[in-house]
Amino acid sequence: MSDLELVGLAGSLRSGSHNRALLRACADLLPEHTSLDIVDLEPIPPYNDDLENDEDRPDPVRDLKAKLARADALLIATPEYNHGIPGVLKNALDWASRPAFDSPMAGLPVGMMSASPAKGGAVKAQQHLKLVLLGMVSEVFPHPGVAVGQSGDKFDDDMRLTDETTRDFVRDFLADFVSWVRERSAED
Amino acid sequence: MSDLELVGLAGSLRSGSHNRALLRACADLLPEHTSLDIVDLEPIPPYNDDLENDEDRPDPVRDLKAKLARADALLIATPEYNHGIPGVLKNALDWASRPAFDSPMAGLPVGMMSASPAKGGAVKAQQHLKLVLLGMVSEVFPHPGVAVGQSGDKFDDDMRLTDETTRDFVRDFLADFVSWVRERSAED
Repeated sequence: MSDLELVGLAGSLRSGSHNRALLRACADLLPEHTSLDIVDLEPIPPYNDDLENDEDRPDPVRDLKAKLARADALLIATPEYNHGIPGVLKNALDWASRPAFDSPMAGLPVGMMSASPAKGGAVKAQQHLKLVLLGMVSEVFPHPGVAVGQSGDKFDDDMRLTDETTRDFVRDFLADFVSWVRERSAED
Repeated sequence: MSDLELVGLAGSLRSGSHNRALLRACADLLPEHTSLDIVDLEPIPPYNDDLENDEDRPDPVRDLKAKLARADALLIATPEYNHGIPGVLKNALDWASRPAFDSPMAGLPVGMMSASPAKGGAVKAQQHLKLVLLGMVSEVFPHPGVAVGQSGDKFDDDMRLTDETTRDFVRDFLADFVSWVRERSAED
């Protein structure tokens, strides 16, 4: 039985995404009494401010915002596209960030990871994501970062995270993140 | 008759967008022999790397990339969402930037403007956009920037740019931008 609920978002839609696979791996690596609900961003339409109201809001956006409003925290795994986060992820966060400063993202604790076939592990995407999240007054988990480089070597053909060093690192990160989220909840 | 063709992209989809209106105003303010083709980003689907190939590429993406490949330069007008460019615009640029470093964006001259109801005029969006464009090896027009603040006062009810100071400033910007693009073409 879980008493701490995380929503998970992956910034890549491709079927072989290492970031989605990393997020799925987290379900096994989370500390006890914690659950992770991964929301697919594919159905989220392009942000249109004319539709961002209770009557016109598209259903996938409604669902995402409701889940974020209920969640204790958000966990994001993102690739780096053109020195930043993918438009797909930014678009979902644009929806989720309305109304400004009073949205489901305001005050929401957020942890982030990234994976990349390159050695750097998409760290520029994380830098960008931190600025975006702080812009919508989310609480960004202060952590040196989980950036999985050379991701092609860390997953097997079924997209399972098999590299033990990475598994241990992610497990420790999740334990630290969840502790931090629990401390924040206790303070509220 | 125009011998220099610009593609225009607006980062906001809402009907009352001042950035789209600013881009439309440019059609009247361009120097001679220059045309502007504004491409609507609403039909561009979320980026999926599985579809970014000649067989599967969605038609609106195909059209955008073909227009960018033919264009002499790109003109972008963007609002600022959460301290960066909208996901909608980033998503279109993610598509346009493939294949990396050999895309229609590689070497393409790009000028940018922004408009915002706030005083700042969305300058953080421009900062972000510069990094994104340089990441895809576009040529970014070096210019102090056109940032239209308090945009609500600059357009009339029919979304026409009526503020004469702004019109003059945008006209001068476009003249400088087009001169710079022509110099680059002459060098090629």
